[in-house]
Amino acid sequence: MVTPTSVAPPREALAVVSAADVSALAAGAAIFGTGGGGAVQTAQLAAEHALQRHGPVPLLSLDDLTADDAVIMMSGIGAPTVGIEMLSSATQVEAIMREAEVVAGRPITALMPAEIGGSNGVSPIGWAARLGLKVLDADGMGRAFPEATMIAPNVVGVPCDFSVMGDVIGNVVVLRTVDLRWLERHARAITVSSGGVCLGAHYLLTAETAPGAVIAGTVSRAVAVGRALLAATEPVAAVAAELAAAVLLTGKVVDVARRTEGGFVRGSVTIAGTGADRGRLQRIELQNENLVVLEDGEVLVSVPDLVTIVDAETGHAISTELLAFGQRVAVLAWACDPLWRTPRGLELAGPRAFGYDLPYVPFEGGPR
Amino acid sequence: MVTPTSVAPPREALAVVSAADVSALAAGAAIFGTGGGGAVQTAQLAAEHALQRHGPVPLLSLDDLTADDAVIMMSGIGAPTVGIEMLSSATQVEAIMREAEVVAGRPITALMPAEIGGSNGVSPIGWAARLGLKVLDADGMGRAFPEATMIAPNVVGVPCDFSVMGDVIGNVVVLRTVDLRWLERHARAITVSSGGVCLGAHYLLTAETAPGAVIAGTVSRAVAVGRALLAATEPVAAVAAELAAAVLLTGKVVDVARRTEGGFVRGSVTIAGTGADRGRLQRIELQNENLVVLEDGEVLVSVPDLVTIVDAETGHAISTELLAFGQRVAVLAWACDPLWRTPRGLELAGPRAFGYDLPYVPFEGGPR
Repeated sequence: MVTPTSVAPPREALAVVSAADVSALAAGAAIFGTGGGGAVQTAQLAAEHALQRHGPVPLLSLDDLTADDAVIMMSGIGAPTVGIEMLSSATQVEAIMREAEVVAGRPITALMPAEIGGSNGVSPIGWAARLGLKVLDADGMGRAFPEATMIAPNVVGVPCDFSVMGDVIGNVVVLRTVDLRWLERHARAITVSSGGVCLGAHYLLTAETAPGAVIAGTVSRAVAVGRALLAATEPVAAVAAELAAAVLLTGKVVDVARRTEGGFVRGSVTIAGTGADRGRLQRIELQNENLVVLEDGEVLVSVPDLVTIVDAETGHAISTELLAFGQRVAVLAWACDPLWRTPRGLELAGPRAFGYDLPYVPFEGGPR
Repeated sequence: MVTPTSVAPPREALAVVSAADVSALAAGAAIFGTGGGGAVQTAQLAAEHALQRHGPVPLLSLDDLTADDAVIMMSGIGAPTVGIEMLSSATQVEAIMREAEVVAGRPITALMPAEIGGSNGVSPIGWAARLGLKVLDADGMGRAFPEATMIAPNVVGVPCDFSVMGDVIGNVVVLRTVDLRWLERHARAITVSSGGVCLGAHYLLTAETAPGAVIAGTVSRAVAVGRALLAATEPVAAVAAELAAAVLLTGKVVDVARRTEGGFVRGSVTIAGTGADRGRLQRIELQNENLVVLEDGEVLVSVPDLVTIVDAETGHAISTELLAFGQRVAVLAWACDPLWRTPRGLELAGPRAFGYDLPYVPFEGGPR
């Protein structure tokens, strides 16, 4: 393991997100994506464009929420391999929000990312700018996860009254399901039927229900990680330091087994160590996100802890759908939000939730 | 071909449907089902029970509709092979109607069958009784068809603003699609995701939009056909006479090729002639409904004209999912409603809409 060489910058919550912040937000969100949440490049361009045109977006803390506020979680849904090619339509988010307000029977005042990881951590900022809405400085995962059930309000028992999805064609679907497993099942069916990706809004939260049901401060956190990355001369070490992450391996991608099925990307990537790590071999299994790191038949890290593959030179995250043979990479791993280590958190997003018959062993991250 | 021997009774519109009418309605709806629309047995029991408990249901003609009326089409969706086992839940229709009224923003005053054929022609009567609603004496097809696009308002260009589906679990889905092909596609995805069958409401019609956009009088018509069937000593001939149908063949089912896939039943049934028809062989291709009758490589009848296989003794229709080797049957065929013979009607429900590279040749039915 490599010892980080830089020191974390102070963590401060932002008051607004402006166009100048988007490159840092995108770089940071990609790191929190653990391979998933969608590649950030087009989301970054779209959000920059929206913020340039409509101005900065107010970023609310949980304490800023008033009785008038209704916050809804937004995200893309589907296989990142498709999402990188099938872009959103210009009116998709507007159609979703219009329907959400009909079903909710009240105006929606703010958006928040359902997951801070990947494009899903970036796009809602641009959408909020376009719609004239605020953004809650929080997300539903503190990372990215592949399924609708794996979300903070579900850990703490806040129900999801309804969900609205929209496809690029212009179709809008409202799902009022008995639980999140049925939401996941029906939403995935619509996603596949839509060609592989959709956008969705769910979990209408208020000043009463949001505290404790979201992972707070993660938009600011992603910007801070991105700033550390972009400013560093040794980006991998800088990101590791900022996250208190360990560098599990530095090496070369020697195999990518990846297939798009049922609205997910599934497969694995194999990385052979180079330099000081020569002779070591790690396999990372994935379902949209990186799930488990294996070396010599042993599990080094597993969900819900975070594993991100980054470019060994630039420190930028490489998302699942962009992994390719020959890439020079480093594997970062760090501890998840404590919410995911509760019994209910592990039930929803621990290794067994993904079909691995493994006990969860908390990963404690790298030196600080 | 067999010449019908009885004369059609006068066709009169009913003012109400009562429990005593349900057996005739079910027998008649099964005939109009052309193999699909769902087997009528359990729908008959449920509707009889509801009408006994809540009293007769008022049957409106198009002329009876007032400015206050909002009529919605109801049906089951999915594979009849599944529908015969997966029954509706007690609260499924109530949940759908509650959501439909939220989305429509007005009370719904009447139901109508989306298709008069099979259980879909029977169940809405019981649902209306339970919900205290009226029934419009009309349907959307004058028969049964497998896909959502194949419906009268779509022929004449009345748009479908929204559709509400419900599964037996209690999940409710609102679909606001750009057209009926997308409704069919997304509704089918939800149907498969629900286990193979759902219930649905769509096409909210009013006194202004309903005339010309529905097939009028078909509930009364189904009851009349059922009464003729139940009263006759020669049921096959009596039904043929009532419908001006031809008896294409009398024989024995010698092969059934049937598979349930993508929310449909697909396959074919082969019938070998007996008695006067000995030596003849007909194959009927099906997708939920009977689509095309072939004999000696020639097409005798095709969609949108109607083909129903009935029990040679009792005259009762045998639906797709109940066809079995050895059944003694007669094959009835008769002309569809003129709406389906318009260019747009044939585009939506002619042989080419089902993938057959065949010109449509109108079938003119049997002697009267």
